[in-house]
Amino acid sequence: MIDLRSDTVTRPTPEMRRAMAEAPVGDDVFGDDPTVNELEKYVADLLGKEAAIYAPSGTMTNQMALHIQTRPGDEVLLHAGAHIYNYEAGAPALLSSVQVRPLPGEGGTVSPETLREAFRPEDVHFPRPRLLCLENTHNAAGGRVYPLESFRAVVDEARNLNLRVHLDGARIFNAQAATGIPARHWCELADTVSVCSSKGLGAPVGSLLAGDEQTIERARRARKAFGGGMRQAGIVAAGALYAFRNHIDRLAEDHERARRLAEGIAELGYRTTPPETNIVLVEVGDVAQFLRELAQENVLATPAGLTTVRFCTHLDVGDEGVEHAIAAVAGIRKRV
Amino acid sequence: MIDLRSDTVTRPTPEMRRAMAEAPVGDDVFGDDPTVNELEKYVADLLGKEAAIYAPSGTMTNQMALHIQTRPGDEVLLHAGAHIYNYEAGAPALLSSVQVRPLPGEGGTVSPETLREAFRPEDVHFPRPRLLCLENTHNAAGGRVYPLESFRAVVDEARNLNLRVHLDGARIFNAQAATGIPARHWCELADTVSVCSSKGLGAPVGSLLAGDEQTIERARRARKAFGGGMRQAGIVAAGALYAFRNHIDRLAEDHERARRLAEGIAELGYRTTPPETNIVLVEVGDVAQFLRELAQENVLATPAGLTTVRFCTHLDVGDEGVEHAIAAVAGIRKRV
Amino acid sequence: MIDLRSDTVTRPTPEMRRAMAEAPVGDDVFGDDPTVNELEKYVADLLGKEAAIYAPSGTMTNQMALHIQTRPGDEVLLHAGAHIYNYEAGAPALLSSVQVRPLPGEGGTVSPETLREAFRPEDVHFPRPRLLCLENTHNAAGGRVYPLESFRAVVDEARNLNLRVHLDGARIFNAQAATGIPARHWCELADTVSVCSSKGLGAPVGSLLAGDEQTIERARRARKAFGGGMRQAGIVAAGALYAFRNHIDRLAEDHERARRLAEGIAELGYRTTPPETNIVLVEVGDVAQFLRELAQENVLATPAGLTTVRFCTHLDVGDEGVEHAIAAVAGIRKRV
Amino acid sequence: MIDLRSDTVTRPTPEMRRAMAEAPVGDDVFGDDPTVNELEKYVADLLGKEAAIYAPSGTMTNQMALHIQTRPGDEVLLHAGAHIYNYEAGAPALLSSVQVRPLPGEGGTVSPETLREAFRPEDVHFPRPRLLCLENTHNAAGGRVYPLESFRAVVDEARNLNLRVHLDGARIFNAQAATGIPARHWCELADTVSVCSSKGLGAPVGSLLAGDEQTIERARRARKAFGGGMRQAGIVAAGALYAFRNHIDRLAEDHERARRLAEGIAELGYRTTPPETNIVLVEVGDVAQFLRELAQENVLATPAGLTTVRFCTHLDVGDEGVEHAIAAVAGIRKRV
Repeated sequence: MIDLRSDTVTRPTPEMRRAMAEAPVGDDVFGDDPTVNELEKYVADLLGKEAAIYAPSGTMTNQMALHIQTRPGDEVLLHAGAHIYNYEAGAPALLSSVQVRPLPGEGGTVSPETLREAFRPEDVHFPRPRLLCLENTHNAAGGRVYPLESFRAVVDEARNLNLRVHLDGARIFNAQAATGIPARHWCELADTVSVCSSKGLGAPVGSLLAGDEQTIERARRARKAFGGGMRQAGIVAAGALYAFRNHIDRLAEDHERARRLAEGIAELGYRTTPPETNIVLVEVGDVAQFLRELAQENVLATPAGLTTVRFCTHLDVGDEGVEHAIAAVAGIRKRV
Repeated sequence: MIDLRSDTVTRPTPEMRRAMAEAPVGDDVFGDDPTVNELEKYVADLLGKEAAIYAPSGTMTNQMALHIQTRPGDEVLLHAGAHIYNYEAGAPALLSSVQVRPLPGEGGTVSPETLREAFRPEDVHFPRPRLLCLENTHNAAGGRVYPLESFRAVVDEARNLNLRVHLDGARIFNAQAATGIPARHWCELADTVSVCSSKGLGAPVGSLLAGDEQTIERARRARKAFGGGMRQAGIVAAGALYAFRNHIDRLAEDHERARRLAEGIAELGYRTTPPETNIVLVEVGDVAQFLRELAQENVLATPAGLTTVRFCTHLDVGDEGVEHAIAAVAGIRKRV
Repeated sequence: MIDLRSDTVTRPTPEMRRAMAEAPVGDDVFGDDPTVNELEKYVADLLGKEAAIYAPSGTMTNQMALHIQTRPGDEVLLHAGAHIYNYEAGAPALLSSVQVRPLPGEGGTVSPETLREAFRPEDVHFPRPRLLCLENTHNAAGGRVYPLESFRAVVDEARNLNLRVHLDGARIFNAQAATGIPARHWCELADTVSVCSSKGLGAPVGSLLAGDEQTIERARRARKAFGGGMRQAGIVAAGALYAFRNHIDRLAEDHERARRLAEGIAELGYRTTPPETNIVLVEVGDVAQFLRELAQENVLATPAGLTTVRFCTHLDVGDEGVEHAIAAVAGIRKRV
Repeated sequence: MIDLRSDTVTRPTPEMRRAMAEAPVGDDVFGDDPTVNELEKYVADLLGKEAAIYAPSGTMTNQMALHIQTRPGDEVLLHAGAHIYNYEAGAPALLSSVQVRPLPGEGGTVSPETLREAFRPEDVHFPRPRLLCLENTHNAAGGRVYPLESFRAVVDEARNLNLRVHLDGARIFNAQAATGIPARHWCELADTVSVCSSKGLGAPVGSLLAGDEQTIERARRARKAFGGGMRQAGIVAAGALYAFRNHIDRLAEDHERARRLAEGIAELGYRTTPPETNIVLVEVGDVAQFLRELAQENVLATPAGLTTVRFCTHLDVGDEGVEHAIAAVAGIRKRV
């Protein structure tokens, strides 16, 4: 089975399994897990932040960021395609009682003008705008990189408007791999950043939230209340640490394969956008039927809208897998 | 001062004051206020619903409707210009922990196609769509009437999608006055309807939520928890009852004056939309300066966007007031 | 019918009705209602606070106090018999996502020792203690006055523990009338105070929250989000203003009648506590049957526990009413 | 270092590490992790329930139980010493907007009479009682077993009152080991049960919530919204599965050592209660000083109140550790 549904489906490599099996551990709720502590320090440094905290999922780190940087009744501004708005089960309202305000924007970006127009002035009738969330790379936009200059421009506008800024960096290292710009250049502009070890980097579990020390201290309390305090979390943290140390550079291979996949499918007459990273969006018309036929050829993908299918390359799919997927699509094409 | 900021600024008439002064009252939290009981029955009948409940504000009745028809983590779908989304201080997330999903649509309406596309299927990642809120007349769209056939079409689609439907009918009687269609024709299609006595109808305080008996019974609990239980509420309920009995038909006069105001301003070269009811939107460019100059001429209006000003006719503004307002705008125009 | 269920059942006097009928009003959501503005200033001065805000109910003013002085996940400490814990429909969790921690204490008071023991230190496992709520007079304890020195002692302890203090002063003027100590002496020790115009003072609607200017400014936003913004609220505010100006001193009459009622019932062999203010608790055994028989004699009271009944004297019950009530209880006694 | 702070501090055994290293895994958010699926089925069977769901912590499984069995404004009844009330960071209010009502009771139990008296009848003023939470064994009461007959009696009363019942069974297998009664006998009486693999059973991470299929299906959504969806969770689930299969019976050894520890300390003149399971509470007077001196002897324990210290035996503490701890206490005693 060639599983291109998501880069979350990767299985740990033998080396990563060994790292987990041998990890020194302790009770992280007491702060005693040496592997978790090492991971948190490593990632904070990597992102240019003072501190970081490890949690079970990217949803939790994003929601911790919202929780500690807002008050009930506040408004969180983000792109209409944001993961936080669309794929986190309504958690902003559920966990933090904040209103989410989706904004339009090319390729998952939010322009300074759009932000300024959406910003509500102080008035007892309005929710208070408090936090801007940006996403890089942008999943729903097909893995698009947030250009650093555009990012800086909208963050500058957010500062003018006295907004805090959170970066959903679940795939920030794909942006680094695609552009050569170190991830920290985006991260340093934001107040908080979430990064995932369980997506392209291939670790089995976990995500980190990074920021200044005081902010991350408050995040520890939110993590506890959300039920994200794990005991000997060092077992899985070891996998994450291995991933951050060893799997960032190889993301470029996933991007290369995504390009090949997109070309192969485009040549069959489907509309695709040339991928910037590891996500390929293809216009297929009847999504359900397409995915069903694809599965019969042992290839898995996911819906990404009413007429669009998403393929996602990752650690567990090599060149042969990509060629197999192209052949499977070719087979479907022929039958249409 | 000609106050065209909102139809909420009206002062009670002498007859209405007399009705309030003489109202029999009791403790409404114990269900003992005869005037409140009479008002609730009167309005339920007027809207074609089994029951109604009186509360201090339209924000509270709208939010009670959301609260009793959703669970935390649900999604409420509504027009991007909806009062519930823009002017209720983020209450959907604050009071009910629900996500609000703003939709595009001509003149404050939501088409069945738009609704269908925005509807999220059952999936653990997605907030659950649960409630559609419609608004008639639509404040932000300039007091536009929701055409009954379009209303029916989107409600039908909502039923197909297993959504409940709430109608924000703060100005539903303006729709009745403008079209001759009884308000109940819209109301009967929705599960719950809020109506205001304190807007165009001119009563000092209050709003009602109507629906079936079981739903309204649950709303009593929400009202209590929100702090909306009033004691001898019959005092203000008497004003509301007077308004529902005596001020509905006269809304047509406000509409006539709004038309006259819009024409007068349009003739000065401003872009306006011919008003369907009592709200006039005018493109003025620099809103803050326009409102300042207007106030110097003893005319008040409100901003309705970055370049648009809103005038709202009502009980306390007669023909002379309208002519005065037009003259004031003419004075501004001349100076430009 | 002699209605001794609560001092909330009073009907406005003719003078109060006249004050309401003639009140100058405006749109209070715009800050334009002169009567509301006058009431807010009057009550702030009366309580020794910088500012006050008018809202539809005592539940709302209490909940506004909680909302603006806590964050989700905080803990609010209060007496186990507190109105906020028992009679506000679970609103602390519903509106502010805070945990309530009920404490034991003689006569509705909380001792400094009890507070200190219940105080949780900083630890990620614990909800953060943030606010102490006290109630004076204390409803469930039978209208007991909070002795000023005890009040000061527990507030001092709260300050040591870095807690904010809210005073539920729904019946604070009963404490003043009973002791001769001006209400402001308690109020000045607390950060926020709620007072009701619709209980013993006899106005039909409303409550005020008082505090420093910045705190009350934040309360305006909470009031809006809770749906407590009323338009021409001056109508009912005029009744409240009349009550604060004219009905405080006469509370002593209610207290005198409560004493007479308690004595009369005690002489019949029932266990009662000598009332300090206007509430009489009587041990009756089978509460439901007692209340039923009482109602047959045209006297109304309420349950106050499994075996206890509460009588509450007020503006609308004179000496004859009290004697009638005693006679009614005597009739029940004879039949037992 | 003899770490007796909690049974959460255990480190995985070599066999358990091997099980984790070799576990087959998949993406559990897609339902594809075979080890997680096996664990969920195994634990459901063990507890006599239809289904179970794996989550990162006991706090999360408890809070999922509350979330799916209540609505905002409901009241959850539990013992005043309950973990849910005292050690979960205020999560009931934060995550589910419910009020928690602490009840008194011998040894962590709640009697049917206490429950009945605390139960609030239907009334718009009261939070709605909806869920009873019981804890077995009871942590704060010193690891006391909930006697099965008492458990059945209070559950029967809860059913009469139309309450749902959740069992916090974080240490339910300690009750089984102490009494010989299978855990499922308690579990079958409750609607939902949480059990921890990371406490006495010695796995590094995780907890499960069990119940009927429909309930657990709803729990999946709550887990996602809380951020508890993990990807290749099979890594840690394998440790949990190993623990459930191999470490239940050995809990009796921890109990034996706790008895020895309690006796040894009692003989030194300290007041202790004979432990029923693996928790020993000792009255020490100055807790902070006692713990400091103990740590100097390389023994760790935790505070359990103002004058009480808690020792907790577990997998990583053998007979020598216990004797070392007794000797350390003896040393402190001598110096006093």
